[in-house]
Amino acid sequence: MFRPQIKVVDCTVRDGGLMNKWQFEDDFVRQVYLACSEAGIDYMEIGYLSSESAFSRDVYGSWRFCAEEDLQRVIGDDEKKIKLSAMADIGRIDYDDIPPKSESSLDMVRVACYVHQIDAAIALAHHCQAKGYETTINVMAVSTVGPRDLREALDDLSQSRVPVIYLVDSFGAFYSEDIDVLAKHYMDRMPDKTIGIHCHNNQQLAFANTIAAIINGVNYLDGSLYGIGRGAGNCPLELLVSFLKNPKFKVRPLIEVIESHIIPLRKKIDWGYFIPYMVTGMLNQHPRAAMAHMESDEKECITDFFNQTICSIDLV
Amino acid sequence: MFRPQIKVVDCTVRDGGLMNKWQFEDDFVRQVYLACSEAGIDYMEIGYLSSESAFSRDVYGSWRFCAEEDLQRVIGDDEKKIKLSAMADIGRIDYDDIPPKSESSLDMVRVACYVHQIDAAIALAHHCQAKGYETTINVMAVSTVGPRDLREALDDLSQSRVPVIYLVDSFGAFYSEDIDVLAKHYMDRMPDKTIGIHCHNNQQLAFANTIAAIINGVNYLDGSLYGIGRGAGNCPLELLVSFLKNPKFKVRPLIEVIESHIIPLRKKIDWGYFIPYMVTGMLNQHPRAAMAHMESDEKECITDFFNQTICSIDLV
Repeated sequence: MFRPQIKVVDCTVRDGGLMNKWQFEDDFVRQVYLACSEAGIDYMEIGYLSSESAFSRDVYGSWRFCAEEDLQRVIGDDEKKIKLSAMADIGRIDYDDIPPKSESSLDMVRVACYVHQIDAAIALAHHCQAKGYETTINVMAVSTVGPRDLREALDDLSQSRVPVIYLVDSFGAFYSEDIDVLAKHYMDRMPDKTIGIHCHNNQQLAFANTIAAIINGVNYLDGSLYGIGRGAGNCPLELLVSFLKNPKFKVRPLIEVIESHIIPLRKKIDWGYFIPYMVTGMLNQHPRAAMAHMESDEKECITDFFNQTICSIDLV
Repeated sequence: MFRPQIKVVDCTVRDGGLMNKWQFEDDFVRQVYLACSEAGIDYMEIGYLSSESAFSRDVYGSWRFCAEEDLQRVIGDDEKKIKLSAMADIGRIDYDDIPPKSESSLDMVRVACYVHQIDAAIALAHHCQAKGYETTINVMAVSTVGPRDLREALDDLSQSRVPVIYLVDSFGAFYSEDIDVLAKHYMDRMPDKTIGIHCHNNQQLAFANTIAAIINGVNYLDGSLYGIGRGAGNCPLELLVSFLKNPKFKVRPLIEVIESHIIPLRKKIDWGYFIPYMVTGMLNQHPRAAMAHMESDEKECITDFFNQTICSIDLV
């Protein structure tokens, strides 16, 4: 009933940090780490790998950087039972600032890129591989990429040594039919690669689209606790694990940490389904305008946001 | 791109009333009515059709009864541009208490039943047809019905004169694959019937499952504003309308009334995705225990609820 090749990646701290500049207390990150470990999650993506010169620690929390001393505070002295991942953005990490795997508690580096950055992403991922890390490339905002550009990007990726390529619905714009078509396209153009999926929940479809990807043979699955993530958030990890029916996964540790750490945070940060995020999702737009609206005093003036955003699009 | 046979049914007041005993102010119901009318929604299900002897007006609001004078307060003097529906539960409405269509502003009566009540449901629906109403039968909690009982029920319904039969995921337990299989099964056993879908959002799949039903040829689609409904609620009407891409539907009036009337109500009533509802959904159980938990002082003790509910089921 379950597929042993499936790997689940928790993005709670990495994607959730896009909502609070990674200003999580160490205890929060450690409890997420312990819960994911106990739940049998394969990877915890603990933040971004960034050069200290690219961001200020006065503004951004530790998980914008993922320095080894930051990681050590979370791991502590116990046996490490879960692999750790960090995401790297093109241009925000100098090659020289990436330690060799032998000096890091990270196991995987996931390189995020837009389609025009594919060559730079492959070069960075190859560099990380040479330093000893597992790697993936996560091609963002595919919902805005035309068919010729996408085909060329996938062919380039197919030629690379990077083993896992992610289909990313950055804007929460896809319906499951889109996932069906794209997952098949990814596998047709890159028959030797493992495909991953990362969804956003603008239209309450992140979980459904992740299931659609599973049915189509996608094996790396991103989720986050209670769906925390940028804007509308991600596929809820607790739903994903309960769907997978794989005895190696346990739901209870996830529910415990949702109770103790995620619900209290949810009272301070508004991720999830809100109309401004629905509007950018249905219009296939970046959520930044919706996020700015949600942070403003006019947060509940959702008709104004709809009117401003839809402009001349004839959907009203 | 759109299918003209599709009819959309708003269940905001009827299903939402399960959360507040239908204690909506008249202005709330009228604004929902006006917004749905302006948005081009085909039907507004405004409540339950119940005998006054079955419930007390001291406890339950007008929309438990849907008497003609109640309806008139909402419709007012303007032209009625949307059809009105009421739901009837077996045993809670005497035949004699159903007025002839000529004396009612209702256009449709939807008979809700469990599978063992199919014969009573067909008789009640036929009675309503004889009085002049459109009718549907909504077979609830199908996720708990075995294949032989379901086949027999569908064959009985197939022989009836009721034109529309609903597939109802009362517990929010279905994945889209279940909807694929069941929608095909309903159409195979009842080739002359129109099929409808009513989903609950326990696993954030109400919208996705409604889309799956559409793809399988289901043509009567239930939704509610911002997903309001019992427990985790229903398919959000604003998402459904934005998906359908049918120029007869407009999203803006729905967003306006969500801003003016639904979001204020959401601050008083907790429908939507909460872990207790996820737990009963994933276990295919009635949400009543989750609803009681959500109304208790221990609402946030979700691990306790999980432990109590899962009992000996080996999913932890």
